[in-house]
Amino acid sequence: MKKYVFSFEEGSKDMKELLGGKGAGLAEMTRIGLPVPPGITITTEACKEYYEKGQKLWPELKEQVLEKFEELQKKIGLRFGDKENPLLVSVRSGAAVSMPGMMDTILNLGLNDETVFGLAKNSNNERFAYDSYRRFIQMFGNVVLSIDHSKFEKILEEIKQTKGYEQDVELTAEDLKEVVKRYKELIKAETGKEFPQEPMEQLWLAVEAVFKSWNNERAIEYRRIKNIKGLLGTAVNIQAMVFGNLGDDCGTGVCFTRNPATGENELFGEYLPNAQGEDVVAGIRTPLPISELKNKFPELYEQLLDIKKKLENHYKDMQDIEFTVQKGKLYLLQTRTGQRTGFAAVKIAVDLVNEGIIDKKTALMRIEPESLNQLLHKRIDPVAKEKHKPIARGLPASPGAAVGKVVLNSKEAFELAEKKEKVILVRTETSPEDIKGMNAAQGILTQRGGMTSHAAVVARGMGKCAVVGCSDLIVDEDNGIIKVKDLTIKPGDWITLDGNTGEVYLGQLPLVEPDLSGNFETVMSWAKEVKTLGVRTNADTPKDAQVARNFGAEGIGLCRTEHMFFEGDRITAVREMILAGTKEEREKALNKILPMQKEDFYKLFKVMDGLPVTIRLLDPPLHEFLPKEDEEINSVARELGVSPEVIKEKVQNLMEVNPMLGHRGCRLLLTYPEITEMQTKAIMLAAVEAVKEGIKVEPQIMVPLVGHYEELKRVREVIERVAQKILEENNVDIKYKVGTMIEVPRAALTSDEIANYADFFSFGTNDLTQMTFGFSRDDIGKFLPTYLKEEILEDDPFKTVDIKGVGKLMKFTLENGKAVNPNLSVGICGEQGGEPRTVDFCREIKLDYVSCSPYRVPIAILAAAQAEIRRENKN
Amino acid sequence: MKKYVFSFEEGSKDMKELLGGKGAGLAEMTRIGLPVPPGITITTEACKEYYEKGQKLWPELKEQVLEKFEELQKKIGLRFGDKENPLLVSVRSGAAVSMPGMMDTILNLGLNDETVFGLAKNSNNERFAYDSYRRFIQMFGNVVLSIDHSKFEKILEEIKQTKGYEQDVELTAEDLKEVVKRYKELIKAETGKEFPQEPMEQLWLAVEAVFKSWNNERAIEYRRIKNIKGLLGTAVNIQAMVFGNLGDDCGTGVCFTRNPATGENELFGEYLPNAQGEDVVAGIRTPLPISELKNKFPELYEQLLDIKKKLENHYKDMQDIEFTVQKGKLYLLQTRTGQRTGFAAVKIAVDLVNEGIIDKKTALMRIEPESLNQLLHKRIDPVAKEKHKPIARGLPASPGAAVGKVVLNSKEAFELAEKKEKVILVRTETSPEDIKGMNAAQGILTQRGGMTSHAAVVARGMGKCAVVGCSDLIVDEDNGIIKVKDLTIKPGDWITLDGNTGEVYLGQLPLVEPDLSGNFETVMSWAKEVKTLGVRTNADTPKDAQVARNFGAEGIGLCRTEHMFFEGDRITAVREMILAGTKEEREKALNKILPMQKEDFYKLFKVMDGLPVTIRLLDPPLHEFLPKEDEEINSVARELGVSPEVIKEKVQNLMEVNPMLGHRGCRLLLTYPEITEMQTKAIMLAAVEAVKEGIKVEPQIMVPLVGHYEELKRVREVIERVAQKILEENNVDIKYKVGTMIEVPRAALTSDEIANYADFFSFGTNDLTQMTFGFSRDDIGKFLPTYLKEEILEDDPFKTVDIKGVGKLMKFTLENGKAVNPNLSVGICGEQGGEPRTVDFCREIKLDYVSCSPYRVPIAILAAAQAEIRRENKN
Repeated sequence: MKKYVFSFEEGSKDMKELLGGKGAGLAEMTRIGLPVPPGITITTEACKEYYEKGQKLWPELKEQVLEKFEELQKKIGLRFGDKENPLLVSVRSGAAVSMPGMMDTILNLGLNDETVFGLAKNSNNERFAYDSYRRFIQMFGNVVLSIDHSKFEKILEEIKQTKGYEQDVELTAEDLKEVVKRYKELIKAETGKEFPQEPMEQLWLAVEAVFKSWNNERAIEYRRIKNIKGLLGTAVNIQAMVFGNLGDDCGTGVCFTRNPATGENELFGEYLPNAQGEDVVAGIRTPLPISELKNKFPELYEQLLDIKKKLENHYKDMQDIEFTVQKGKLYLLQTRTGQRTGFAAVKIAVDLVNEGIIDKKTALMRIEPESLNQLLHKRIDPVAKEKHKPIARGLPASPGAAVGKVVLNSKEAFELAEKKEKVILVRTETSPEDIKGMNAAQGILTQRGGMTSHAAVVARGMGKCAVVGCSDLIVDEDNGIIKVKDLTIKPGDWITLDGNTGEVYLGQLPLVEPDLSGNFETVMSWAKEVKTLGVRTNADTPKDAQVARNFGAEGIGLCRTEHMFFEGDRITAVREMILAGTKEEREKALNKILPMQKEDFYKLFKVMDGLPVTIRLLDPPLHEFLPKEDEEINSVARELGVSPEVIKEKVQNLMEVNPMLGHRGCRLLLTYPEITEMQTKAIMLAAVEAVKEGIKVEPQIMVPLVGHYEELKRVREVIERVAQKILEENNVDIKYKVGTMIEVPRAALTSDEIANYADFFSFGTNDLTQMTFGFSRDDIGKFLPTYLKEEILEDDPFKTVDIKGVGKLMKFTLENGKAVNPNLSVGICGEQGGEPRTVDFCREIKLDYVSCSPYRVPIAILAAAQAEIRRENKN
Repeated sequence: MKKYVFSFEEGSKDMKELLGGKGAGLAEMTRIGLPVPPGITITTEACKEYYEKGQKLWPELKEQVLEKFEELQKKIGLRFGDKENPLLVSVRSGAAVSMPGMMDTILNLGLNDETVFGLAKNSNNERFAYDSYRRFIQMFGNVVLSIDHSKFEKILEEIKQTKGYEQDVELTAEDLKEVVKRYKELIKAETGKEFPQEPMEQLWLAVEAVFKSWNNERAIEYRRIKNIKGLLGTAVNIQAMVFGNLGDDCGTGVCFTRNPATGENELFGEYLPNAQGEDVVAGIRTPLPISELKNKFPELYEQLLDIKKKLENHYKDMQDIEFTVQKGKLYLLQTRTGQRTGFAAVKIAVDLVNEGIIDKKTALMRIEPESLNQLLHKRIDPVAKEKHKPIARGLPASPGAAVGKVVLNSKEAFELAEKKEKVILVRTETSPEDIKGMNAAQGILTQRGGMTSHAAVVARGMGKCAVVGCSDLIVDEDNGIIKVKDLTIKPGDWITLDGNTGEVYLGQLPLVEPDLSGNFETVMSWAKEVKTLGVRTNADTPKDAQVARNFGAEGIGLCRTEHMFFEGDRITAVREMILAGTKEEREKALNKILPMQKEDFYKLFKVMDGLPVTIRLLDPPLHEFLPKEDEEINSVARELGVSPEVIKEKVQNLMEVNPMLGHRGCRLLLTYPEITEMQTKAIMLAAVEAVKEGIKVEPQIMVPLVGHYEELKRVREVIERVAQKILEENNVDIKYKVGTMIEVPRAALTSDEIANYADFFSFGTNDLTQMTFGFSRDDIGKFLPTYLKEEILEDDPFKTVDIKGVGKLMKFTLENGKAVNPNLSVGICGEQGGEPRTVDFCREIKLDYVSCSPYRVPIAILAAAQAEIRRENKN
């Protein structure tokens, strides 16, 4: 016959599927000799059969439960329903995967009008006994008999009011007897039946209630959403009760085996003497910090230290435990791996390796890559933060923290920053024209825009704190003020941004600097040893490049040359170029930009000495470089010595209905080959200069937006012609590569043709995602939130690569491209390149490298190491 | 030994690859006994070996040429270089594929200072002999010796000036001797050598010149562009000269064996007595129409009729011939299949079947599907057209012709049309708000926009003549006038449009009505018998649907419901719906639209009785329905009783950066399910009403812009819920289908998932092309013309499906979709659906049907038949 019931002694942590997570945990702790109140677990298989058998408990099952329950009673020496000294139990559900929505807990099961006397006598505490009884009836009535919780609360309130009590503790034993009486009347009235007095009947009903909760609406919905399939059902855990509220030698607590905030190797948690778990939650009494137990309850403290050691040695990780002390004896009710901050994760991982408990690879798997973000940036001093309330909350677009004076326009931000003032740039939304001001500001705050808006993307690229889409804010640019509800903020007022949470504070909060030495460095060095996937950076400035290189970037995977077009005075030359009527005029303007771009590239080569530098030729449509507002148009017109109408007309002419799908990328390079020529010249002249100084350069010239091999072929011809000429003139031999972004679906579909003309591919997954989904990143605000909320999409495809759609194109490209051109190197430089799940996918399809913004480099490195270890573990 | 040289008698039409097209044609005519001046052909293989042997003629080749040439001389009874009666030959190149750029023709080869006497004596015409000689030297000097043509012309001009002549014919024999002398001096000066007097040397040099021309720049470029590969080289044809300029019993002519404009079974062409081909081209004398030969040269006419019969019986098609008459004897110099109009193509095909010359399938293959356009629409009377000059020229966006008074706005167009006035709507460009006016107008003329602009697409859909992107025009809407260069056109002025050519005429030109009975009907019935691919129509109105059904459409493949939103007063309700703040308000507005939409659908079901009607739910972004201009905003505000600011704000809110990739299609249906509900209701209520009247309905509800199966699944749930309710309430059982457009690349990539929730797929190749290429149709004007001109792209992918990219997605979708859901029906409803190459591709990948605008239905039917026959012929 099938075994449906296991005592805790019979199970282990490897039997999760059969016993559920909770049951397996309790069994494991029992197995390794930790003090766990004894109990039994009814298997998930029994739950499955319960449904197959038409939702009825069947004889074999009942027999096995009774048999194991008999053993349990013998072991403890107490009996169910014993009027003198009754056994009481808790009943809890527990599937293989933690699942909110299922029935939680029934405590004190076994109490009835008679056993309550025994409990009173034995505990020598009548009030305790009746309080336990009324709690049991309430829980049972609610979860087993489906009577609304509030109906019980109402009775309790009425009695308290009659007596003039404020708090539950004021209720006497006699009051509680009255409560019990009225609770039972309620149950009779609601169900038409008496509250079941027979403990075994109570138990069977509770077991069925657990089984039934497996298929309640919330649980089904949760499984659907999380795509949880293939589970048998829920297990039922029946465990002997222990009480923390039987006197001063009793108590209850929760505790982490290490500090979950800092990772310090110390017990961390709270303890409430003479109390049950519920009381801690209720928050009426203040619990003691665990550290104080050392003096106040030294024995208990020793017991906990002992447990900590056993648990950590066994689970090989920091644990989060729940315990109850009954008459001086400590019982464990739960243990699980503890949640921790990024700081703690890194310290604990390194400490555990040093303590010989885990190896390096296990340590690497323990750190959530995204949590490194906390270590890489400034943050608001946690102590100060607790004392302040945010005035508004937006999207945490770029991590870190920033303090500065409010400035409402980029020009002013730049000017004040020049005077060493700290400023926060606040805008309705930002545009490429704001780059200079954004760069000068401590942080950026916008009223509109999402996680992938211009402000968000640029700020992340700069590693600069940003809060965007802060709709509590109204930026009144006309009057030069900001309104937040009733509050008015003026330029010059101090504010503080928390880029990790999206919170905005009034005033100057103290910041804490990041510390990247010590444990962080250690973890990074381990990760680099393990990973095989290359990690490069998306960087447009020598400063960013240096940051990334310090973090371990192995080259530049994407340098967006257009960002350089906005810097300093060169935007004037760029605009001249755009306004030019002839090729000659255009070339003249381009010649002004040439020396500046050359200098930019030279500096990048210098920082990246010995590593590849991938430079993307001009990508955005030309209208992005022209002014939009009247005032600015006038000022540009003066600067260029033309009439404002000329500029307005040009802006009008260049306007596009769908600029995303318009005249940009290689389309621009093909219609204006002189741009290709100028940029190639700048790159190769910079390379020549660098080489002459002994710098090792690896220029990789990248053509954007290719969708047809002819496009790449023709741009490549121009690049090679110009490059060859410069190398010959300078009598230098430099190996350079020419490749393309794969960002148009057609490029992926025809990658076998394009690979003939490319030395490398780089997935531009931002655009590739836009076109594959038909989602404009600038416009998804109108429907993507709904899609995510209603789980039409599981993830924002701009955050993590959509494996089924975009990923299919990537895999296809990789296979077809390399089949045609075995030397083809393939990377990714879209925003997702630094996101751990994407990094894992890139490793899966055997990409050569990922490239991401500088501050995501450590995250990508760790994720790459984890991807590697995951695959080693699979084999 | 390899055979390098063939006499005409030895070849045939099947030896094109070896003898070239011209050589094979001459051989074939010789073979079937037509009078062709004798000659020989040097093979393309010889050309190939010429290059392999380092560009030298080799002994074996020369031997074979000499041997065949000897035979030729014997056959004719004349000898090369004979001073008394010399043989003269022409030398012409000819590859397997007609190829401009290669050397053309050298005539009169064999003449020299001695044989010219023989020619003079024999022809009894000294002038003729020296004229022939000087022409030979000039051609030889130019094409063999590479001396610039103009240098010869200069000499000729000088002599004419000295003599005071105006025309060449005034040159006497003596003058021509002088020309010859100076030509020879020129050659000596340019090449350092004497003009070769030895006829065999002339011949060898000419043969080499032909071989060399195979690899000249223009020929190589032509082959690259046309992707012509695998040819060996060019053949060389050496043929005995005949002369049409030896007297009045001589002449030269070109002639079609049937009328190429009308298809009438009559000789059609021109004849010039006593002349050479060159003289016809020079246009100094007016040739006779062939029909006049009947009286003037009855014998010649009889000969031609005889030739016509022989040729047509042999080639089984109308031929285009060149001939020369020498001393009363007719010689054929070339025959090829004649170009013809659509009218002629249809008539000739039917006639040839009736005459028993070809079968029906061959006849169907003879008609260029696109040429049917000429038959389907009105056209300008060709006679009247010849007499007028167009004032401007735009893109021929929609075929046909239209005469009307100029109107500059849609409202007025509608009002005048109500008064039975004929109007032409002239706009800078059109928007959906113009639909009403476009519908009322005879034709549409726009200043901006391409072949896929709004005006073009809508006009084609309506089968209405349109000329777009007519940049000669300046529509000055402020002053209510149109300027065309110096000309000013005012509202009320008459103009005439030619939608087949894009020409615009001032005034009223007479039009000719199309005739769709007779031969056209016959061809259509044959095509329908043969084709297997289904042909449906894209139609939004009962009128369009009726036109399409008359043309043979087998259902509606796409009904765009949004077009109905603009009709009559319903746009007001639509705007109310958009401005609604709550779901309830929205539903209230939608309820106003419901009865109107229901009526629309009912009418479509009625017209399409017994055939499927595919209705696409709302697709465009809502902002398309709101007014844009201040004046209109004010008027709408008054109409709806809100302030203009409310509307302006809504317009602002709904504005999108890339509307193409924005909040539209199923994204709209999911965020506003009440739209889905209303449209489903309208469709099902209409179906119920129709069924109750005995109409057979097949409603197919199509969800646009799906990219993820969840989207379709959820919209489908709403549709089924609403539909089920209506069917139950009405106690009617109607089989309806729910499917989706495949227009987002991700839909194609995940078609195996989506197919689980779809009864049918329909490729929206317009959007699929936009997203696969990343081309916005509204913005390609800035780069696509350059791409096509420079052959970066071979075709406009919006005209014909891009097989390598978009086609790959289509094939993948079809295979994966049908694998998951074998009952899935798959069609195409993008604009390309009616384009013959696309139709062929759809047949290739085994699509179930194509759907296109009504006036393209016949074209698609013929193309589908051809696709079928092509595949039968392959097997």
